[in-house]
Order: sequence, then C-alpha cells, then structure tokens
Amino acid sequence: MSRERIKFPVRIGLLGCGTVGGGVIRLINDNAGYLASRVGAPLEIRHVLVRDVEKDRVPECRREWLTTNPDDVFGGDLDLVVEVMGGEAPARSYIERAIAEGKGVVTANKFLIAKHGPGLVEKASAAGVDLAFEASVGGGIPVIRTLREALTSDWVESVHAILNGTCNYILTRMRDEGLPFEEVLADAQHLGYAEADPSLDVDGHDAAQKLVVMSMLAFGARVDPSAVPVEGIRGIDQLDFRFAERFGYTIKHLAIGHDLGDRIALRVHPALIKKGGVLANIDGVLNGIFIMGRALGPCLLVGRGAGDMPTAVSVVADIVDVARSRLEGEQGLATRGIQLSERPLEPLCSIEARCYLRFDVDDHPGVLAAIAGALGQYRVSIEQMVQEGRAAAAGDAVPVLIITHAAHEGAVRDALDSIARERFMKGPPRLIRIEDV
Amino acid sequence: MSRERIKFPVRIGLLGCGTVGGGVIRLINDNAGYLASRVGAPLEIRHVLVRDVEKDRVPECRREWLTTNPDDVFGGDLDLVVEVMGGEAPARSYIERAIAEGKGVVTANKFLIAKHGPGLVEKASAAGVDLAFEASVGGGIPVIRTLREALTSDWVESVHAILNGTCNYILTRMRDEGLPFEEVLADAQHLGYAEADPSLDVDGHDAAQKLVVMSMLAFGARVDPSAVPVEGIRGIDQLDFRFAERFGYTIKHLAIGHDLGDRIALRVHPALIKKGGVLANIDGVLNGIFIMGRALGPCLLVGRGAGDMPTAVSVVADIVDVARSRLEGEQGLATRGIQLSERPLEPLCSIEARCYLRFDVDDHPGVLAAIAGALGQYRVSIEQMVQEGRAAAAGDAVPVLIITHAAHEGAVRDALDSIARERFMKGPPRLIRIEDV
Repeated sequence: MSRERIKFPVRIGLLGCGTVGGGVIRLINDNAGYLASRVGAPLEIRHVLVRDVEKDRVPECRREWLTTNPDDVFGGDLDLVVEVMGGEAPARSYIERAIAEGKGVVTANKFLIAKHGPGLVEKASAAGVDLAFEASVGGGIPVIRTLREALTSDWVESVHAILNGTCNYILTRMRDEGLPFEEVLADAQHLGYAEADPSLDVDGHDAAQKLVVMSMLAFGARVDPSAVPVEGIRGIDQLDFRFAERFGYTIKHLAIGHDLGDRIALRVHPALIKKGGVLANIDGVLNGIFIMGRALGPCLLVGRGAGDMPTAVSVVADIVDVARSRLEGEQGLATRGIQLSERPLEPLCSIEARCYLRFDVDDHPGVLAAIAGALGQYRVSIEQMVQEGRAAAAGDAVPVLIITHAAHEGAVRDALDSIARERFMKGPPRLIRIEDV
Repeated sequence: MSRERIKFPVRIGLLGCGTVGGGVIRLINDNAGYLASRVGAPLEIRHVLVRDVEKDRVPECRREWLTTNPDDVFGGDLDLVVEVMGGEAPARSYIERAIAEGKGVVTANKFLIAKHGPGLVEKASAAGVDLAFEASVGGGIPVIRTLREALTSDWVESVHAILNGTCNYILTRMRDEGLPFEEVLADAQHLGYAEADPSLDVDGHDAAQKLVVMSMLAFGARVDPSAVPVEGIRGIDQLDFRFAERFGYTIKHLAIGHDLGDRIALRVHPALIKKGGVLANIDGVLNGIFIMGRALGPCLLVGRGAGDMPTAVSVVADIVDVARSRLEGEQGLATRGIQLSERPLEPLCSIEARCYLRFDVDDHPGVLAAIAGALGQYRVSIEQMVQEGRAAAAGDAVPVLIITHAAHEGAVRDALDSIARERFMKGPPRLIRIEDV
C-alpha cells in the first residue's frame, strides 16, 4: 500500500495563514522540487483555513486555497494538517479532529502543546498518526528533533535555555545601551518584537510553556505549565546590570530544568551568569538551549527563536518527516519515542543556588550589620558584600549588594522576609539567582 | 514483512572495539530498555570484530562477542554493521561488503566518508540500505542530522566551524596561558588530546575531511578532500595572539564553506574572529558549527567533538534510526536526501577577505613605506598598521602588523611575494584571514 501512494501528491491543509503560515507557503513553493525528492512525492497545499479571505497574504498563497469553512479541511481527503493559528480554541479541537480522521498533524503551537501535549500525543499514538511540533520551541532551532532523535541514546541531566526572544532583546539593549526597561520595551513593541500586551513574554510565561514542551522530551515528564515557578524581567534595572558587570556577570532570562532522579526541577527566572559562559553572548532576539547529557556532555544550540522564515523552516522540516512516514505507511514516528509519566516537581524553596541579593536601604550605621546578621541567622553565607557610595540626599536609598555562597532558596527567602520588615528598608529586597552555566 | 520482524531483536555486528566502540557497547547496555522501546525491538550485539581478543575491553563487552574472523560478521544473519575501527582499509571493504549483503551500516569514519562517501552513498542507495555517519563530524553534536533533517526545507548559504578539538585546545591554551605552540602540543599529547603524530590534527587535514563530509549534506557537493585548501596552526605564535587581542580579535582554526551558486568555496585555516563573536568563546576541546540558512538565518551547534561517550551517543542515535527503518521495511532514509553533484571549487586566490599581515623586518627607516607601497601597488588597501617597539639589539627582527580592508587573496599573495624578496625581511611574511563570524 505504501508503495502505491508514492505516486500521489501529499495533500496539505493549513490552519491559519499569519506570519508563520505565510512563511510555510513560501518555503513549500520555493523548494518544491527538492522537498518532493526528500518526501518521495510532491507536497500540495489544498486548503488554507482563515478568518478573512480578503486579507492580504504572501503572493505565493493562491486565492483558491483560502476558505473560512473548517469542513473544507476536515472530512475530506487531506493527508496532513498544519496548525499555525496559535492559541487554545479552536486549534485544539481542530487538531483532535485531524487526529481522529487519521491525518498527520504538524503544529507550531507552544501554548497548546504545553497545556495539552500529553493528551494529544496519547491520542495521536493511539490513532497511529504523527503529531510533530518542532516549531513550538526555539523557532528554527532543531531542539525537539535533537532531544527526540540525537539524544535518543542518552539521558538529559539538565537544560538551561534562553527561550524568549523579547526578554533577551530587552535585557541585551538594557545591558549594552544602559536604557531603562520601559524604554526598551516600548521600542520592542514599536519594532514588532513585543506584543501590545507584553505580559506573556516579559513575565516569563512564554518561556515556561516552552520549557514544559522541552521537558516532555528531555525528561519524559507530564507537567502542568501553571505549576512551574516563573519570574519575569520587570524587576531588573540598570543598577542590577552595573553590579552584575562589577562581579563579572551578565543577566539573562533563563528556563531551567534538572533531572533529580525521582523528581524534576523546573523554573523560569532572570539569572546572573558568568561573562564568557556559553549563554552569556547569546544576545538580541536569539534563543539558546544548553543541554547537559550524561554521556554526551554539554551541547548548545543557538538560533532565531521566532520570525516567519526560521519558524517555517521547522514547520516544513516536520511536514517532510510526517509526509514521508505517511507515504511509507509507517506513521507515528514523531510521537513513538515520547513516553510520559507524572514526575513530581521539586519545590523552588528546595533548590540550592548562589544568590545576588539587593537591599535598597537608608544610609545609616548598623544597616550592614543587621542584614549580615539576619542572613547568618538563617545560615545564608556571604561571599561578597558591596555598599557603593553614599546617599546623594537625606532620605535617598543606597543599595547594598550581596553575593551569597550556595544556599537553600527557602532559607534565603526566610532571611529576606525578616530583613524586609526592618525599618531601614526603602523597598522590597531583591533576589536574582546565579547560575553556573 | 516489516510487522513480523518487530518481534525479533536487531542483530548488530561491531567492527572495532576501541574508545568509541567501547562507548557504544556501554550505551547499548545501559539504556537497553529505552532503546528497545524507541526502536520497537531490542538491540542485540552479536559479534565484535577485533584484532586481539585478549586485549582489555570495557566490562560491558562480553568475551563471547569477540572475534578476529570477519566471516563471523559477514555472510550471517546480522541486520546492522557498525564500523568504529577508522582508517581506509579494511574499513572500506567491510562497509562495501555489508552494503552488498543488504545490511544497514553505521560508521564514525570521517576519513572514509570524506574520501569515499559519495561512492558509498550511491552503493547504499542502490542496495536500498542505510548508511548513517552522524559520528563522523563533531562527535556528539547532531550536525549531520540537522543538515539532513532540520534544514531539509532550506538552503545552506555558509558554514563556519571549529571542527578539530586538538587545534582548538592548543589555540585556547596559547591564548589564555601565553604558552608557545610546542609546549601546549606536548601537553596535549601527554593528556591524550593529541596523537603522537599530530599532523592530521594540527596541520588541518582532519578538519578538512569533516568539512568535506558536511559539504555533502550542506551543499550536495562531491568534493575531493585533497582539493580543499588547508592550513594548520603551526605558524601561530604569541605575537599573533597579542596583536589579535589588541585589534579586538581572537584566533581560531576554522573550516569554512560557502555556496556561491554554480560553485562552492571550501577552505580550512586559522582565522582572526571578533571577540564576542559566536565562535570566539567556543574553547578547549569543544567543537562549534555555525550554519547560515537562507530562510533559517544563523544557527550554531556546540558540543564535544570527540571522546568515547559523546561520539557513542551519535553512533547509537544512528543505530536507532537505521534499526527502526529496517524493522519497518523502509530502509535508505539516511541516504535518500543526499543528492550529490560535482560542484567546482572556487580557487583560494579568488576569495575576498580582510587580512592580518605580519612582517618581521629589520628595524630601519623606509621599511614601512616599502611595505605600504607594495601593498598599494597590488591595490591592497590598509585599514590599520602597527609597528610596536624597536629592536632590542642590532639584527633583531621587529614585527610590522597590518590589517587590510577586504582584498582578493590573489592580490594579497602577489604583494606578499613581492615584499618577501625585500632584503629587510627577516622571515617569510604571514597572512591570517579575518572572518566576520
């Protein structure tokens, strides 16, 4: 049967035709001959489901493909459904419908895979069809494929990743140009690197979703995205960058996962990392994923984490994979290696890390002693302490910076809570974890 | 037929049991259950061909597997042959025999794939079996897979890569510790990072072989490795590092490929790259591959380019792929996408690059003018010129350093030939290309 089908084109339905969808259409059009030889049959787009058929599309998108009727895509004779519309509804029900109809599915939807990936993978496996989602993490970076195929023979011990281009762009410009967060954010919004509502990006939720998708493959873990501890970058200011620099660090927004044997630890937050470290120079809108494999050792993947064409490269690579398995009558390769189980999350208070602490205080004698005393009381050991300058005017806050030795987060938090109640504190204490990566 | 075979183990013959072979045996042993679920059947090592059955092996290697008789591996009922012996003979004839017998082949042999890859790929395709060689380039870094699968939908415009861990280790220690080449080389030999005869590594031939293998996938090019212009790192000294630093550069040994449309340009040589650039901090024994895709944009892969376990991770990932296709009755996936054609090599004299030039000269008036004049005569434009210090004693050489604007290599060579004939020259002029990466 599989041999017979090779004569026919692979019929594709696209759900959505925004930035990524347009890129997919262009790539399939531009590289038609090569892709056909790779797949063993030509790729043919039959329908593109959109909300508005009158809207301007990339020139390669033919008018006759466009439809607003889902029944044109489903129920018919399509081989493959490519979901590039994003969001939960109706994307989820469309994907479920495609799986139920035995169609192969390619999606770029991180939100959906993070939230419903395990259930969708199970449905796809049961139906014996492929569900591929390379483009859901890291845009054009082949991280899903690397975790699924290249590391198939190894155990992933940890992952440290810059997964949100908006955060990385903002932090890079804050560091390099000395600009405040709000100004760079406004610029990023103007340039299209940040949404009008930037919360999903700058508060860390986008990175958390991608971390959950990666954890499915890296740790075989079924994780509720809302259970991942998340901090964004709104609290970072120029003083933090100045002191990070002084201590030999830079600040990046990281998604971090560790395999702890019975449990896994996942967290998303800004972190101080050594200048010259593997992730320290991954700047601007680039993403970077640093994987530590038990046998492999360190492995770093860097590239554009967003954008129409890089993401489309990943989508079309998945289309080629799924189309090929389909032609060969051997579907399900994309999900076969995913074996998910519930793995308890290590609570954030149990992790151990060196910390950068900042206290904005009234400038008077005894303050340093009080802070040091409170930290000592909770057995948080101080490695370096800096109080730079004096208050410019009476009542101005003066920053006290502390780098701790490795300490339990719970103990640090207790110490900070205690110090926060002191009358000399001019604002809440701040904690940025230091990561050895 | 494919469904029936899934009940049976995949029978593997190993050719060679050195460092990488031992790692492969350990990985297959340690991850047996997971690998079986990935493949759809257990992996079973049946025979390990060695020269000496009495030699000490990894403890996971069973005595009854070992044989010195190739006929135990061939002719029989093995599914898969894994070649980790290296070198040309008898590896080549063994691989050809395995292909002729319809066995799947996995190899880590860069020399063989660089020299005979196109012919072997053709034979494997004709026989409908897989020939997989991820481990031949970049150890544990999934660069072959990325070029073959992830970039299947895109065109590779260029590749800049650190592919030789020995060169990178030596250059890193020379830069960081100010040691001379010979001393670091001796240390590297002592530590096992360099061979007793280091020529293959430090003269650049190893990197050239890997570049040729990558070019098969990146550019679809069939290239004679001996036609690739190659320079090693023996000429680099502390003065070069000091001046590179002063101009804001570091020195790395790079393998470089460009797609020029009708032709391709391949070359291997030391290069000055900007500090803070993507490859500048890939230090020690790490390898790094920087790919520029037309749609993808930049993509960087970094990891351990050698060593038993990282390389074994790639070999076993290939074993899983080949075993799975075999079980499914759909072999040849590993080679199907490789479409090779003769693509003429751009001669080195036609490339255009900024250059770092060094002239060790007699310290007397008129020398700078003579050098500048000769460069001008060949239309090589000077961006910066430095003559640091004076000769410590009469007769001592003084270095003159020049950074040129982008110039044709041919013109630079002509100018250097002309300057080399001047009586004030105390040694041959040196040229290190500057790469914008």
